[in-house]
Amino acid sequence: MFVSQLETPALIVDLDVLERNQTRAMDLLRPLGVALRPHYKSHKCTAIAHMQLAGGAKGITCAKLSEAEDLIQSGVEDVLIANQVVEPAKLMRLGYLAGCCRLSVCVDTLENIRALESAAAAFGTTIHCLVEYEVGMRRCGVATPQEALALAEAVLAAPHLSFLGIQAYAGQLSHAEDFARRSREAARIEGRLRELLAFLHENGVDVPEVSGASTGTVELRGADTAYTEVQAGTYLFMDAAYDRVGVGFEHSLFLLSTVVSADAEHVVCDAGLKTIGVDQGNPVFADFPAASVNMSEEHCVAHCANRCAAGDKLRLIPGHCCTTVNLFDAIYFVRDGRVVDRVPVTSRGKSR
Amino acid sequence: MFVSQLETPALIVDLDVLERNQTRAMDLLRPLGVALRPHYKSHKCTAIAHMQLAGGAKGITCAKLSEAEDLIQSGVEDVLIANQVVEPAKLMRLGYLAGCCRLSVCVDTLENIRALESAAAAFGTTIHCLVEYEVGMRRCGVATPQEALALAEAVLAAPHLSFLGIQAYAGQLSHAEDFARRSREAARIEGRLRELLAFLHENGVDVPEVSGASTGTVELRGADTAYTEVQAGTYLFMDAAYDRVGVGFEHSLFLLSTVVSADAEHVVCDAGLKTIGVDQGNPVFADFPAASVNMSEEHCVAHCANRCAAGDKLRLIPGHCCTTVNLFDAIYFVRDGRVVDRVPVTSRGKSR
Repeated sequence: MFVSQLETPALIVDLDVLERNQTRAMDLLRPLGVALRPHYKSHKCTAIAHMQLAGGAKGITCAKLSEAEDLIQSGVEDVLIANQVVEPAKLMRLGYLAGCCRLSVCVDTLENIRALESAAAAFGTTIHCLVEYEVGMRRCGVATPQEALALAEAVLAAPHLSFLGIQAYAGQLSHAEDFARRSREAARIEGRLRELLAFLHENGVDVPEVSGASTGTVELRGADTAYTEVQAGTYLFMDAAYDRVGVGFEHSLFLLSTVVSADAEHVVCDAGLKTIGVDQGNPVFADFPAASVNMSEEHCVAHCANRCAAGDKLRLIPGHCCTTVNLFDAIYFVRDGRVVDRVPVTSRGKSR
Repeated sequence: MFVSQLETPALIVDLDVLERNQTRAMDLLRPLGVALRPHYKSHKCTAIAHMQLAGGAKGITCAKLSEAEDLIQSGVEDVLIANQVVEPAKLMRLGYLAGCCRLSVCVDTLENIRALESAAAAFGTTIHCLVEYEVGMRRCGVATPQEALALAEAVLAAPHLSFLGIQAYAGQLSHAEDFARRSREAARIEGRLRELLAFLHENGVDVPEVSGASTGTVELRGADTAYTEVQAGTYLFMDAAYDRVGVGFEHSLFLLSTVVSADAEHVVCDAGLKTIGVDQGNPVFADFPAASVNMSEEHCVAHCANRCAAGDKLRLIPGHCCTTVNLFDAIYFVRDGRVVDRVPVTSRGKSR
């Protein structure tokens, strides 16, 4: 069927563009010797994760245990949960899953390291740990080399844990629109990471991996970067928020919407706050990008002089792809205006 | 099990509070002779819709055809889709469903009235129509009595349509925090509606129903209101945005979250943009309502001097209940700190 025949609101992905974005990300990182471990949170589709792995990704990053479960049960063999897991029932599941693939998780307290060791011991498995280092987000992670050393040593001393290295995610930089500032801050963080690595090395701790970065900082890693792998997610789909950052990937993800009402001044579409994440700004109409947009729960109103009629189909570029995909059960794959597949958003709503 | 044993993030509803809110809404409207037709968009649970009907609601309002399908298939016998349905495949489904219950829909163009007539004729059913009147939202609807008359006459002339009356939703007022302004504007809209009804009456058109209003305006309807039914939704759950409006209902809906990291200055919880709608502002921590809150995709950081430890469970009041519920597959019903049921969010993600 033609894309224009889909009932709306519908989430569509242009596969030709998606493939170009994957190739571009690999082309950027390969000369630096840096691996791509794409973040599952942007698409939550195991089908797309396997496309990324086939396209050169080393493994998959995710945010939650429930996402890791979906990935592992789809056959992904190298999964990083770039987050802390603290609830007892979740720790037990983590201990079990560590026997099903190479499973890594972030840690930032001694208590959590002890709990992970118990969980892995209960199943006779090994959980790989990244010590989370706080690099400006003020969220999770420890802020001093001394604290990081204490955690790394605790992981090294735990028989069922493996010390994998450092997680350092500078989320505050991802959407910095001033390139000079982003570049300067990224360099400062690289400096902090090099100091940390030197300190750990002096104290007898080798650091195999440094994981972090995002679509907004993937281009900034020079040949001397401390990072060994990049957790970019949005690069594959792109969204209106990253457009403003200017990262050079193309839009492959669109929300197809139907005009339900229109006059000479404005167009009312059937896509609202329940189908588009607006936490990073409103969507942009692909056909009239300069039009101001108002959102309500089930409607999107574009103030534009263009003339549309009720029943017309329009494409919207979501402000934030990650929170948009999470609102849908399925994505339609399209090429040349035709629907070629419908893949489930496997982990939609998996926030545990 | 105890509520504190639920894995998080989890959406919980205090049934005692929910029942008080339902009683209060009925107590406000009954003396005015105004019916309650609660909006399904706030909870998207057929189980809760049936509780509202048992508690005195006349029928259910919803926003989309896919929501109406869920309601009708759960046995609700009076359903209003407070929106336009324009896509051909949806019109056909609407024509069929009109034979399964008393089904109403809004119209604002002659083309749509013709399409609805065809769809109902195809199945030999009757679709009830409300002519949508624009009362300040600048979204759908016609803005003059003359246009409304033309539409009403077209509905009256269509053999398979029934003219039910007027839909007039003043969404711009719902969250107006200045009571005097809200009251004044509501009175102005009532005036416009009375003029419209007089004009239609002069032209031989009787208007059985005037449907609209919301949780934010439910209190403002005086004994002389033009409205015959109120489409309030949030009254049942309440949220932080309606707190600021001061509408006098209690919070029955909370997001239960686990602390994943904490120090003396801030608390990091496992609930983020993918579990709480922030389109009407950030959530509020029930235990420290004054704390400023930062959100990211999977984390919520509260800056507070309170001391919590990783693993503690905290309750958050969503900024907007409607877009929050839409992120979950299920809601846990609780009484006195114990889980008493788990009901599916039947129409989560049903935006078509």
